[in-house]
Amino acid sequence: MTDIRKALDSVARETDQWLGTLLPDGSGPESQLFEAMRYAALGPGKRLRPFLLVETGRLFDVDRKGLLRAACAIECVHTYSLVHDDLPCMDDDDMRRGRPTVHKAYDEATAVLAGDGLLTFAFELLADPGTHPDPRVRAALVLALAKASGAHGMVGGQMLDLVSENTAVDEVRIARLQQLKTGALIAAACEMGALMGHASADAMHAIMAYAKDLGLAFQIADDLLDVTGDADQMGKAVGKDAALGKATFVALLGADRARQQADHLAQQAQQHLAMFGARADVLRETASFVVERRS
Amino acid sequence: MTDIRKALDSVARETDQWLGTLLPDGSGPESQLFEAMRYAALGPGKRLRPFLLVETGRLFDVDRKGLLRAACAIECVHTYSLVHDDLPCMDDDDMRRGRPTVHKAYDEATAVLAGDGLLTFAFELLADPGTHPDPRVRAALVLALAKASGAHGMVGGQMLDLVSENTAVDEVRIARLQQLKTGALIAAACEMGALMGHASADAMHAIMAYAKDLGLAFQIADDLLDVTGDADQMGKAVGKDAALGKATFVALLGADRARQQADHLAQQAQQHLAMFGARADVLRETASFVVERRS
Repeated sequence: MTDIRKALDSVARETDQWLGTLLPDGSGPESQLFEAMRYAALGPGKRLRPFLLVETGRLFDVDRKGLLRAACAIECVHTYSLVHDDLPCMDDDDMRRGRPTVHKAYDEATAVLAGDGLLTFAFELLADPGTHPDPRVRAALVLALAKASGAHGMVGGQMLDLVSENTAVDEVRIARLQQLKTGALIAAACEMGALMGHASADAMHAIMAYAKDLGLAFQIADDLLDVTGDADQMGKAVGKDAALGKATFVALLGADRARQQADHLAQQAQQHLAMFGARADVLRETASFVVERRS
Repeated sequence: MTDIRKALDSVARETDQWLGTLLPDGSGPESQLFEAMRYAALGPGKRLRPFLLVETGRLFDVDRKGLLRAACAIECVHTYSLVHDDLPCMDDDDMRRGRPTVHKAYDEATAVLAGDGLLTFAFELLADPGTHPDPRVRAALVLALAKASGAHGMVGGQMLDLVSENTAVDEVRIARLQQLKTGALIAAACEMGALMGHASADAMHAIMAYAKDLGLAFQIADDLLDVTGDADQMGKAVGKDAALGKATFVALLGADRARQQADHLAQQAQQHLAMFGARADVLRETASFVVERRS
């Protein structure tokens, strides 16, 4: 587990450097917007989605600079979703990654606009020739990220989550909710890395199967951490899911069976990578990492 | 003025038909999201941005189906900005286009998500091969729309508007505010039509000069309507700008000089179109229309 943490930290550092360079900056009267976007995007975080994008792209020998620019784009989408989810009218969270949430550090209007700005900026980055020389790939990246994060993806999952509060839901619905809310963007990270490497249909199929299992394993592990985790280590409130009557696998299956399910999915994810041999070892270790992490 | 109204109505009808077909739909538990997106996007409206995109594209003989899909994308961005601007933490408006705003018809969380979904959907539409066969054009459309609507465009203008409330601002700052908040998206409509037609550098230059003057004329006319307009005809509250201490040209110049300025800009906009001859008559009439409209 040492190596994977090092690799994660390295991509996280590079992603943050690029984000720092690329994100809007300036000293005009509207600079509060740029500050809030930077505050949100450059806060502490694992940068799991950038990592998956970069490591998938590396399987296909994609230029690292382009991968990191695309990684910044997907991190901007992830960050915007957290900023909007934390709003008082949504999950109403005061803390995120150990710091005040954006609407607490600034105000609600700035948080709405910072989220809007980050989402828009993600597509600007992907469409820019600096991210990939092939316009067909750039358009495909935009399409993949938009589908994964839109009404039939992450935003739809967030709506499903809101209407599922305090409602009895079954395993099928929870799986769908998590697939939309978290899984779609994690899958998009891997898909985008593969798109940038002009992956064959077989390779793309294997990557997407890996990403789907990984995403679900990640979400179950996240739910477990909300039950068993330490608020200090997590940098945010724990036990909130249960308090809000949120639909989670842990609520439905209990912690033990949820843990088994996560481990099983992680192993299954690893098996999908057989065709890539030792080159995919980092992605294999990532699957173990997401279910064994403690924060 | 009869012809231009007919042409506007025709594009509006076609845009709404395409929006109805393209926007997410479905009966799942998260369908409230799709309903709210449709409620927002399909409400009454002039569809000025779609009209400008389609009419600019027609100068270059662009396929109408593609133009209408791109028109839907820019209308989704315009609509999302209205949904978020109307939120209680922003302008706190209860009525829009004669109907309850999205957070009134649904709730705040749904309004935030519907806006997010519409913005994301715009980029999905543009990146889709159905909008234009040339991937270079699709990537350029995404880039143009993202730049115009992001932190250095519309979202930045909204932030500038919020921090300018009850603040003494000069003409330069108001012009910049309006250029970002309204002008950038109006210019993007024309730019996107020209991009789809592979416009020459000279043609693009002329179109952008037209669009810039038109956008500012439109905003001054909008400010005038807020002072002199009729709430029933407008379908929303009037006199709000003054009540909120908003920075407008009318507040700074007075109604008479603002009206002169709008007329001057409309004429100037028309002159930029000389190279297109009679083909650009509809765009010329549009410039007159935006400063003479009563709602």
